[in-house]
Amino acid sequence: MIRIVTTETPYKVGETVKLSGWVHKQRYLSKVTFLLLRDRGGIIQCILEKEWLNFRVENESIVEIIGDVVESKKQKLGVEIHVRNIRVINKCQKAIPFEINQSELKAGMDHLLNHRTISLRHEKNQAIFKIQSVLSQSFGDFFTSHGFTRIFTPKIVSQGAEGGANVFSLNYFGKNAHLAQSPQFYKQMMVASGFERVFEIGQVFRAEAHHSSRHLNEYVSLDVEIGFIDDVKEIMEWETDVLKYMISRVNDQCKRELEILDVKLPFITEIPCLTLYEAQEILSSQYQKASPEGDLDSEGERLIGEYVREKYNSEFVFITNYPCETRPMYTMPSNDSALTESFDLLYKGLEITSGGLRIHDYEMLLQSFSSKGLNPNDFASYIEMFQYGVPPHGGFAIGLERLTANMTGVGNIRGATAFPRDLERLIP
Amino acid sequence: MIRIVTTETPYKVGETVKLSGWVHKQRYLSKVTFLLLRDRGGIIQCILEKEWLNFRVENESIVEIIGDVVESKKQKLGVEIHVRNIRVINKCQKAIPFEINQSELKAGMDHLLNHRTISLRHEKNQAIFKIQSVLSQSFGDFFTSHGFTRIFTPKIVSQGAEGGANVFSLNYFGKNAHLAQSPQFYKQMMVASGFERVFEIGQVFRAEAHHSSRHLNEYVSLDVEIGFIDDVKEIMEWETDVLKYMISRVNDQCKRELEILDVKLPFITEIPCLTLYEAQEILSSQYQKASPEGDLDSEGERLIGEYVREKYNSEFVFITNYPCETRPMYTMPSNDSALTESFDLLYKGLEITSGGLRIHDYEMLLQSFSSKGLNPNDFASYIEMFQYGVPPHGGFAIGLERLTANMTGVGNIRGATAFPRDLERLIP
Repeated sequence: MIRIVTTETPYKVGETVKLSGWVHKQRYLSKVTFLLLRDRGGIIQCILEKEWLNFRVENESIVEIIGDVVESKKQKLGVEIHVRNIRVINKCQKAIPFEINQSELKAGMDHLLNHRTISLRHEKNQAIFKIQSVLSQSFGDFFTSHGFTRIFTPKIVSQGAEGGANVFSLNYFGKNAHLAQSPQFYKQMMVASGFERVFEIGQVFRAEAHHSSRHLNEYVSLDVEIGFIDDVKEIMEWETDVLKYMISRVNDQCKRELEILDVKLPFITEIPCLTLYEAQEILSSQYQKASPEGDLDSEGERLIGEYVREKYNSEFVFITNYPCETRPMYTMPSNDSALTESFDLLYKGLEITSGGLRIHDYEMLLQSFSSKGLNPNDFASYIEMFQYGVPPHGGFAIGLERLTANMTGVGNIRGATAFPRDLERLIP
Repeated sequence: MIRIVTTETPYKVGETVKLSGWVHKQRYLSKVTFLLLRDRGGIIQCILEKEWLNFRVENESIVEIIGDVVESKKQKLGVEIHVRNIRVINKCQKAIPFEINQSELKAGMDHLLNHRTISLRHEKNQAIFKIQSVLSQSFGDFFTSHGFTRIFTPKIVSQGAEGGANVFSLNYFGKNAHLAQSPQFYKQMMVASGFERVFEIGQVFRAEAHHSSRHLNEYVSLDVEIGFIDDVKEIMEWETDVLKYMISRVNDQCKRELEILDVKLPFITEIPCLTLYEAQEILSSQYQKASPEGDLDSEGERLIGEYVREKYNSEFVFITNYPCETRPMYTMPSNDSALTESFDLLYKGLEITSGGLRIHDYEMLLQSFSSKGLNPNDFASYIEMFQYGVPPHGGFAIGLERLTANMTGVGNIRGATAFPRDLERLIP
């Protein structure tokens, strides 16, 4: 008999089926034992009577059940299983460190992360990572269907994308190497190599000594780079469109998960834009909040998030026109100003994207490097290509864990990361 | 006017269109200049006459052309462009290091890789990486559609999956860390965390000092792990099915690329199986070739590849029943023998996959670790979970670059890697 999953049981009323999974919860009454069985589809009630009445097993053990599917209006699935046979496949032999069959996990973040294979079993965590899976796959599907090439660029590199600060270093067969902070240079190189439109889904590594709920030292970056584009607004349109698509896919494919998390996803029509100057003025005039030179701080981002939710009924807002000083050396400057053709995207007051047009002119790039005090020789293989015909281009990157955390209502980014890496955490 | 791509031109006969791309080749006659324009879709002939007759620009410059689409039976596309206006967007200002408008790239591998943004522009390289893109995306689509969760597991780890040999080490905020050799432990942990069916597409890192055409020190692993499975044949069926699907997607979406590479993809019905013992016997009796204890060497794999192509008309063959000694400590042993429930997959005589059932019983796992001389304490966070109810499971991994190289007929795996990392190469 082939194993079926709980979600298939409503279509099998009257049949005898095989189910396997974890023992989620048990309740023993005098004439019946209720056993909740959990598998990747969800949870189903199984009824043990007569010869099975005294069957006992530790919660979280793996069991296989053969039983009849019977209609039961009281059950959420509309069915329950009357057990004919139950067999222990792998016993849970140690007391689990916290209860996972309650509506909330009641333990501190560290404890939950130390026992990650247990805490991930909780249905809210299952929901978070199933949504994350759909977000990443749909991101790829969207761009693939628009003529983009999916690329894989190296994570062991010799040159840091942003100038070498905050990188993890390693010995690479006697050479000094780094872990890539971003695929920035490489995705630009792939555009210039003739692929024009590329995307990458991959890890990036930041050796920043943050203690915060919004930073990780290793995270997944959803990167896009587009050639033959010369207006930063087009890049923002691409990002708006892919977010619309990703949200629609989550709405379609994760109904149960959204329900478990009690989350309703934003409906995006258009994402409002504020220039950095406007955002800083709003903070100053309406919140009496000063901002750092040429940027917003995290508290400023949070307040702007509140402002646009109230004023535009939007969870998203683009912040544009950052000055050259606060953007990387590859950023395209605006005509006749000290500003750039760049943007950030805030989602619920948290930056999830930086993007913009890039410099494609060789001389302008050299000048930009030297104005930042960088030595072009340290970036030779990147800079060289701008002599060989590079189209106007630009792109952006979305932090997958930040997007997931905000979308699912997780307060701490670690909750949207299967095995987070931070200042203290390297295990599991 | 919105830019269109060469592939759209056959549908625009009689219209004036805008095209942009690289100047691929030029030929100057007395009354006409032929300019071949290359974009991500391909190459199109543009005719410059009268006031444009003496237009000159370096090959590989970026230009924008406005012109009329005219039928032309001599052209492969069936159309050509009569130029009304041409504008240089970004000039190629340095002589390119090798010709890329010939049918083959004539330069050594090192030279081609040193100037990767130029060599990648060659249409054969474009084809290789577009096929690779479809392979990786379709791999994800297949498993997503079968209830798998796409996972992201850390690349900075504290424990090596295969026991700590051949790992790159790094200083992680004062702690000793490694780059992940494989997501093996983590994908098993995600199965045990209740996701049951998971896949990951991500980089893995091997600090092996190989000088070979088949090894990279950083490569992309297509990883799968499946819970509630207890027959290794089921895992081989999953791999057969995903390969069928990936090949069908490449056939559908990469017609032009397959033509450029002059490649016809294998039609898989069933993949033949040989036990390791049978394979070694065939090598011994038919090729007078001895094999290493409990394994095949690369020459043996190549010969078995020839053998199955002749005997079974198959480019693929599963090799099964490896002994415990030559498989990792998490491999499930077979009943009543010193063999394991494991397999390799050879494609054209090259190993592209290892897979098998894993041990899910805590005591058996402890015994397996100690029989390999490993200290379970060094793998505590992995081993601990087997006390908490882990289902029977197994999986496999496909090396994306090897698969791509073999499929596209590239002799050296570096040719199927955008920016390869080997013993010498860290740039670009």
